[in-house]
Amino acid sequence: MAEYIAPIQRLIDEFRRIPGVGAKTAARYAFAVLNLSPDAAAGFADAIIGVKRDVHICPVCFGLSSKAESCEICSSPDRDASVICVVEDAKDIITMERIRGYKGVYHVLGGVLSPLDNVTPRDLKLAELDKRVREGSVREVIIATNPTPKGDTTAAYIVRMLEDSGVRLSRLAYGIPVGANIEYADDVTLSRAMEGRRFFENKSGI
Amino acid sequence: MAEYIAPIQRLIDEFRRIPGVGAKTAARYAFAVLNLSPDAAAGFADAIIGVKRDVHICPVCFGLSSKAESCEICSSPDRDASVICVVEDAKDIITMERIRGYKGVYHVLGGVLSPLDNVTPRDLKLAELDKRVREGSVREVIIATNPTPKGDTTAAYIVRMLEDSGVRLSRLAYGIPVGANIEYADDVTLSRAMEGRRFFENKSGI
Repeated sequence: MAEYIAPIQRLIDEFRRIPGVGAKTAARYAFAVLNLSPDAAAGFADAIIGVKRDVHICPVCFGLSSKAESCEICSSPDRDASVICVVEDAKDIITMERIRGYKGVYHVLGGVLSPLDNVTPRDLKLAELDKRVREGSVREVIIATNPTPKGDTTAAYIVRMLEDSGVRLSRLAYGIPVGANIEYADDVTLSRAMEGRRFFENKSGI
Repeated sequence: MAEYIAPIQRLIDEFRRIPGVGAKTAARYAFAVLNLSPDAAAGFADAIIGVKRDVHICPVCFGLSSKAESCEICSSPDRDASVICVVEDAKDIITMERIRGYKGVYHVLGGVLSPLDNVTPRDLKLAELDKRVREGSVREVIIATNPTPKGDTTAAYIVRMLEDSGVRLSRLAYGIPVGANIEYADDVTLSRAMEGRRFFENKSGI
């Protein structure tokens, strides 16, 4: 490996902490920072400190909040607290919010069940979900875990946990992406699309 | 665009200052930083401050130095100060050092001549190179600017500037990369390889 002077090598090592950033990319980033003005570099450093200092976990949904109390979504009067969308990570809330139509609230599990990685129900916010559903006036729980084996296992666990709670349980539909060609869909997606096929009412014809 | 809470959006914007980092990548990096321990995040922030504070420009070669005086290469008794390799950027020194065989010193121009971008000889360390060559006991100047139109122009400028100085002037050989196939070489590289062809001594056969 090439030899960088100590302060540069140190910054390269820090950039390499980010998953997916290799040695060459980290070096390019370090030199980009070196080319910033001292003020801009100070701002960058401060933003890193700030993200750790000013980002809080919402005590209701475990999503990210800019205040120590409940987050913008949980505390909004416009949101319907009787519908909870369960997601794996806080990031997924941003993704779900993109569809705009959803007016319910969220519950962040903080991961998925994975016995091989020692992630058990106790490591996720599952007991908190159970409590939230049984204590509040929740009508529906929409499970939005990813369509992966671990996401499926976690969804199945939630269904079992909540099936006697009386709330409606559903999971996001998985199938052919809009605009995609059936020819190029993989087998698993295709069989999921077949299982999840929607029947038309007789009246509406085929 | 998705809406992130302010401290995260701020860090995303900082990451986007790095050339080549787009919105999605910056968001991924910001969340990776959010997942660091507070100590690790503080270390990252400090490394950014450190690279601006502790990296100096060598007053001899204009490369990067971890001290305010001349850099490790210029102050090393093992390096031959009579051979100067002229490079565009400080980063290029790291690249050249990879071949290990080179025992001379360097001179960083800090860019290439580019009239369209208002980069004139005065914006580069060309007068400093001229002074260094004429005042010192320099024997050879190896021009290692990139084989681009701007790199070529800059090399031609240096040759004109130093041709009456009495030192040997050379430029890195450009041609087919080792291990590459002639079939896939582009026309410019191929004609450079032809121009730079090396003649075998009659004694050594073909």
